[in-house]
Amino acid sequence: MKSSISKRLIAEAIGTFALVFCGTGAIVINEFTGGTVTHPGIAFTFGLIVMGMIYAFGDISGAHINPAVTIGFAYAKKFPWKEVPLYAVAQCAGALAASGLLLYLFPDNELLGATLPQIEVLKVFILEVLLSFFLMVVIINVSTGAKEIGVIAGIAIGGIVLLEAMFAGPITGASMNPARSLSPALVSGNLQHLWLYLTAPIIGCILAVMSCKLVKDEHCCDDDC
Amino acid sequence: MKSSISKRLIAEAIGTFALVFCGTGAIVINEFTGGTVTHPGIAFTFGLIVMGMIYAFGDISGAHINPAVTIGFAYAKKFPWKEVPLYAVAQCAGALAASGLLLYLFPDNELLGATLPQIEVLKVFILEVLLSFFLMVVIINVSTGAKEIGVIAGIAIGGIVLLEAMFAGPITGASMNPARSLSPALVSGNLQHLWLYLTAPIIGCILAVMSCKLVKDEHCCDDDC
Amino acid sequence: MKSSISKRLIAEAIGTFALVFCGTGAIVINEFTGGTVTHPGIAFTFGLIVMGMIYAFGDISGAHINPAVTIGFAYAKKFPWKEVPLYAVAQCAGALAASGLLLYLFPDNELLGATLPQIEVLKVFILEVLLSFFLMVVIINVSTGAKEIGVIAGIAIGGIVLLEAMFAGPITGASMNPARSLSPALVSGNLQHLWLYLTAPIIGCILAVMSCKLVKDEHCCDDDC
Amino acid sequence: MKSSISKRLIAEAIGTFALVFCGTGAIVINEFTGGTVTHPGIAFTFGLIVMGMIYAFGDISGAHINPAVTIGFAYAKKFPWKEVPLYAVAQCAGALAASGLLLYLFPDNELLGATLPQIEVLKVFILEVLLSFFLMVVIINVSTGAKEIGVIAGIAIGGIVLLEAMFAGPITGASMNPARSLSPALVSGNLQHLWLYLTAPIIGCILAVMSCKLVKDEHCCDDDC
Repeated sequence: MKSSISKRLIAEAIGTFALVFCGTGAIVINEFTGGTVTHPGIAFTFGLIVMGMIYAFGDISGAHINPAVTIGFAYAKKFPWKEVPLYAVAQCAGALAASGLLLYLFPDNELLGATLPQIEVLKVFILEVLLSFFLMVVIINVSTGAKEIGVIAGIAIGGIVLLEAMFAGPITGASMNPARSLSPALVSGNLQHLWLYLTAPIIGCILAVMSCKLVKDEHCCDDDC
Repeated sequence: MKSSISKRLIAEAIGTFALVFCGTGAIVINEFTGGTVTHPGIAFTFGLIVMGMIYAFGDISGAHINPAVTIGFAYAKKFPWKEVPLYAVAQCAGALAASGLLLYLFPDNELLGATLPQIEVLKVFILEVLLSFFLMVVIINVSTGAKEIGVIAGIAIGGIVLLEAMFAGPITGASMNPARSLSPALVSGNLQHLWLYLTAPIIGCILAVMSCKLVKDEHCCDDDC
Repeated sequence: MKSSISKRLIAEAIGTFALVFCGTGAIVINEFTGGTVTHPGIAFTFGLIVMGMIYAFGDISGAHINPAVTIGFAYAKKFPWKEVPLYAVAQCAGALAASGLLLYLFPDNELLGATLPQIEVLKVFILEVLLSFFLMVVIINVSTGAKEIGVIAGIAIGGIVLLEAMFAGPITGASMNPARSLSPALVSGNLQHLWLYLTAPIIGCILAVMSCKLVKDEHCCDDDC
Repeated sequence: MKSSISKRLIAEAIGTFALVFCGTGAIVINEFTGGTVTHPGIAFTFGLIVMGMIYAFGDISGAHINPAVTIGFAYAKKFPWKEVPLYAVAQCAGALAASGLLLYLFPDNELLGATLPQIEVLKVFILEVLLSFFLMVVIINVSTGAKEIGVIAGIAIGGIVLLEAMFAGPITGASMNPARSLSPALVSGNLQHLWLYLTAPIIGCILAVMSCKLVKDEHCCDDDC
């Protein structure tokens, strides 16, 4: 990541804007059209926009487009802690712009794709920790592996987002991403349970970095190797 | 692109023929069979034919198969302006042949897959600008990135087309491509709102090239680096 | 292809067995279960088994698993004409074994996945020529392109099979493959229109090789370059 | 695989935990929500979690996450027999933890995704042998092929799991994996027919290694080449 911090922040903002606009837009348009997009179609939208943004901006900013992933990388000593707040602000700014634009386009939609628990809160919390753990396990291992595997990173990470949105979306919303949950909650005014989606992904990502040290030589999870 | 201009124009014509024949053919056959292809199936058809044509013709003509992408590359100084009209004519010729053949095969179909706004025109215009922006953001960054990423270009770009057709297709038709919208509109005689689909993709692609200069060193968006 | 001819024929037989067993098996099981697999699910099965067999056997036999593709390669002077009958017999033997096993497993199924025209025969003939043309355009260009693209060949070719099965399957069966159509027709006794599926794919594949010479330097379509 | 045995066992346990949690979780959540995930969505979940785990842990433990695959590699002399029981225990431990957690999260679910025959047992046995054969044919050929193909291994193998779950899931459950069948059967108390899912995948994987010797030079299937 040799790009200047301002270029990287713009990349994170555009990437998170695209993620939230397309992903939660799929939920909004599915409701607007009475189910045309379908639930699997929503899962594909989330997975493929993550893949696309990784290939567009991976070389520039790392294409985290997720504050929990940024914190996970910082915890792994692969990203400077002092830049974490800047990345998080850029990601949330992009996300909020996406939710605001969706509100303008579809003013009658109530939730704007906000994530809400469909079963007991504790169980949803556990699920979101696990979903984020699986996501970060793939991210941390792919990004510290052989160079050839790096080419495939977008497919591997997009695929994980796709499958988690597919199977867990109907229960938890499959957020795995504080910025993705924050913006529709704020813009639509549905702040109940938001704390869950702000904390669980961060815990899951940190647990994944810890697990990395159990399966790799420690320095491999800490810096480039 | 060392191929002669005539070879490259034939590649663009065949590629755009395939895109419009398979993509709008999926819409026509879905209507003909009462929904067998399904909306997600239509989105997969569009995304995968773009991927296939990129792998078939990327080395020959660049596999733009989209006048807005050609203009975007010209604006980025990565394609000669004087060849833009030639590419656009080849692309539209291929697209028109596809719509004409679909009319022969399915003479009772009314729209032949023409794109029509399902909400207010201004909002559809904004959506088509954005969809084309996301598409060109991936194209311009992938095509100016590391060589290894180039191998994955077809997957990244096809994936973006797939997801945008998936979530925005029910609202705007998810054109992103003047040639793809022009040919069914002309052949089926549904020219209302065509101006929208001719202009919005071009604006979106140019905005994407502008944004590239915000996140990359300027010369990287302008010529090969 | 340094493997001995006997090893290559076994690879083609196993590969075509897998293609027909999984692909037409998806059709049979979809009927058996009242639609659980779904039409898109059938298309995914066909596309992904082609991808898997290319990665398993591409280095050994070329993984044609389709007599029309073998003839196309011979016409392109990239495969010896004298081995074409051997490949075709191995492919058909594998396909017939698959249909026979499906008959044993699902004895009440009437068609075993045989391809039958759903609109006028001439139009289905044109469609099958075109589908095979698109398939072979991707195969011939990918297999004569840069070495890095070869790694992606299975994805590009499997993706084309997937999308063509998706959009044209409900009209023509999306055969593109004489062996895939021959075996369920023979084993289930539905030989009407079989001639169409034996001839159209071969014509389409030869047209694709011809088109290759329009877009590439001629020797590139003829031998390795 | 230079990692220590303990690191590799942890990788296998986490990988199999993820496979069973996401895959059978998709089945459980599909039942809980009255079909929202859909059958194709379940197939995607199984295929993509296998792909993700291969990219996360392939470099560490080989990412077998399946005792039948481990036995297949040992039979091919590409894995030490003495480590087979350790891998199998780690895989089953991860699987059992996943089923136990699913029982806590969805206590009213009866089967927890256990695999049960939907047609005669003998036919299901034959199908599971074949499904595992196709899976291992791809694994053994991809893992002994050119280095570049290794990068694509996760896509090829995940794709095979996806398509087999898609077309054969409604008949056999498409297990191909003793650990994946053992854990929901034990935790939900549905042990009938379990023997089938413990034996058929092992037979299929061994047959695939045997077939490898028919199509490759023998030493290529036995050790790295």
